[in-house]
Amino acid sequence: MRRGGALRGAQLAYETWGRLNHARDNAVLLFTGLSPSAHAAASAGDPRDGWWQRMIGPGLALDTDRHFVVCVNSLGSCFGSTGPASIDPHSAQPYRLSFPDLSIEDIARAGHELVRALGVLRLDTVMGPSLGGMVVLAYAALFPGGARRLASISGTAAASPFAIALRSIQREAITSDPAWRNGEYSPEQPPAAGMRLARKLGTVTYRSAAEWTQRFDRQPIRADLRGRTPFGSEFAVQGYLEAQAGRWISTFDANCYLYLSQAMDRFELAAHGDPQAVLRRADLAQALVVGVESDLLFPIGEQQALASTFEASGTATRFAPLPCIEGHDAFLVDTERFGRVIGEFLCG
Amino acid sequence: MRRGGALRGAQLAYETWGRLNHARDNAVLLFTGLSPSAHAAASAGDPRDGWWQRMIGPGLALDTDRHFVVCVNSLGSCFGSTGPASIDPHSAQPYRLSFPDLSIEDIARAGHELVRALGVLRLDTVMGPSLGGMVVLAYAALFPGGARRLASISGTAAASPFAIALRSIQREAITSDPAWRNGEYSPEQPPAAGMRLARKLGTVTYRSAAEWTQRFDRQPIRADLRGRTPFGSEFAVQGYLEAQAGRWISTFDANCYLYLSQAMDRFELAAHGDPQAVLRRADLAQALVVGVESDLLFPIGEQQALASTFEASGTATRFAPLPCIEGHDAFLVDTERFGRVIGEFLCG
Repeated sequence: MRRGGALRGAQLAYETWGRLNHARDNAVLLFTGLSPSAHAAASAGDPRDGWWQRMIGPGLALDTDRHFVVCVNSLGSCFGSTGPASIDPHSAQPYRLSFPDLSIEDIARAGHELVRALGVLRLDTVMGPSLGGMVVLAYAALFPGGARRLASISGTAAASPFAIALRSIQREAITSDPAWRNGEYSPEQPPAAGMRLARKLGTVTYRSAAEWTQRFDRQPIRADLRGRTPFGSEFAVQGYLEAQAGRWISTFDANCYLYLSQAMDRFELAAHGDPQAVLRRADLAQALVVGVESDLLFPIGEQQALASTFEASGTATRFAPLPCIEGHDAFLVDTERFGRVIGEFLCG
Repeated sequence: MRRGGALRGAQLAYETWGRLNHARDNAVLLFTGLSPSAHAAASAGDPRDGWWQRMIGPGLALDTDRHFVVCVNSLGSCFGSTGPASIDPHSAQPYRLSFPDLSIEDIARAGHELVRALGVLRLDTVMGPSLGGMVVLAYAALFPGGARRLASISGTAAASPFAIALRSIQREAITSDPAWRNGEYSPEQPPAAGMRLARKLGTVTYRSAAEWTQRFDRQPIRADLRGRTPFGSEFAVQGYLEAQAGRWISTFDANCYLYLSQAMDRFELAAHGDPQAVLRRADLAQALVVGVESDLLFPIGEQQALASTFEASGTATRFAPLPCIEGHDAFLVDTERFGRVIGEFLCG
């Protein structure tokens, strides 16, 4: 692991769509945001819709008639890849906080090992949104020549202090919940109150004020969802936050969240050297940098700056600032706009 | 109280600067934001700097050579005015959650009673920032002719769902802290963990991403402040949040905060009727609406809309969107820009 320690017998969960061609040069490796699994789209083995269902398939932006698409669950997450909630083979107990320090670079390296194991020596494209938009930059820094193209989607070369503040408050909501027990909670008794707060705040940062005014304005909450305790929910937007939080608490592990969230704060492309030199060394034929103007957490200015660094490194770069109002999460919602930009890039 | 219940023997804490003239027509009533006391500036009785020290005094924006300035601690707060932390004379115990439902209109009415008791029949100006920017609108709605002029500073006619979401998460941080004990905590054992989270999040919403990039960027935290527990603070911005939160926890009461915060979510000028008609009935000679472009919590668009409503009501209105980068708190920080606009208005 980049910051010390090692994982032995680690596993990676992944899914694939399309087929690796004979030349083995049509693979697209897709990293995810903080929360999703590798299930980006339906497949024969799992017919449920995935988190990027309208983006991956025959004739879609990630065209599985042309590309072999691989999505990997981040190292450190809890959907099949090894993370703090996994059993440490050494102790036969969950790793919990004995999991080694996690960095964005470790997630990139895990994805690299995966595609090598699948027989891919050079990716057609390495791609990722949000946290994944950091991972692709780590990938470029660590594996020069490892991909022909790179697509950073609502990502950044380094988190701003504003994003760090918001994420650190989310982590503190969990670590200050007595049920967290310094990471030693049982899966049946997670730090639910802290996780609820963390996810509600996360949801605020993933969306935008304009979208919520349009969707909820000041509508009252549905009568059956109205809080019955003092200071309980009164507005529709509070019911939405509650629903989002409830869904997440029932699927995500608190310690995994803490590790992944902290890794995002710490990531800095410049840790690998002068960013322009790092990206030149990465030897990419093309780069795509996409973001949205209403993004609070990964603001468009950071993507603009990243695109400029790519340009300056001599990489043929397309910068696509999108006018979506859904904030950071737009890549999950406005698949029409994102699909057009990403589809054009992959066809090029 | 507007939403039911009554307070008996309630008290109001206030401070004054300058002198009421013979005609009793030079009084400026200043409401505060959520957290401050009535100590807006130093005075003979309390020489410490106040929260608007550079704004109130001889020759300053609120010119005490001309005006009799009165600042009142909001009803429901904890700096001398009656609120949930005060002793209920009926039970001889703190009110806690037996305090009646609090609304912005109750705070306005309390201020009105205060100035009447001081012998003022009509204010020269009613003024307030943030929460106080809501209170002045309630004042105008409740007391037609009660003020000749009105200044709304980084206020709004109704909170957006985005602001409601952010405030409701802050309240939940407190109410889900087991130490809150449904409001029955002792003053020595407040729900400190929840209050810390609430204030840190509050601080994020009071500032702006641009300011923090300028001030903190990705600087590491001072070594002596570095968190020693897992996932502890690593960046300078986290040290800043911690300091802000620590200061607030030692002075503010959690229940008072919950009441005031909820009152802000609930306030809506339109509850008094068509806003244009309400403001026409208020019979103001002039209105000033000031806000800043980087405000996340009371966005400039809401102030623009409020200014338009004033205009449409037939009130001579000045709308001043300021290019400060300090976000919502700019009125506390950029007193040069705010002082100029407010001073010009009061001289007019």
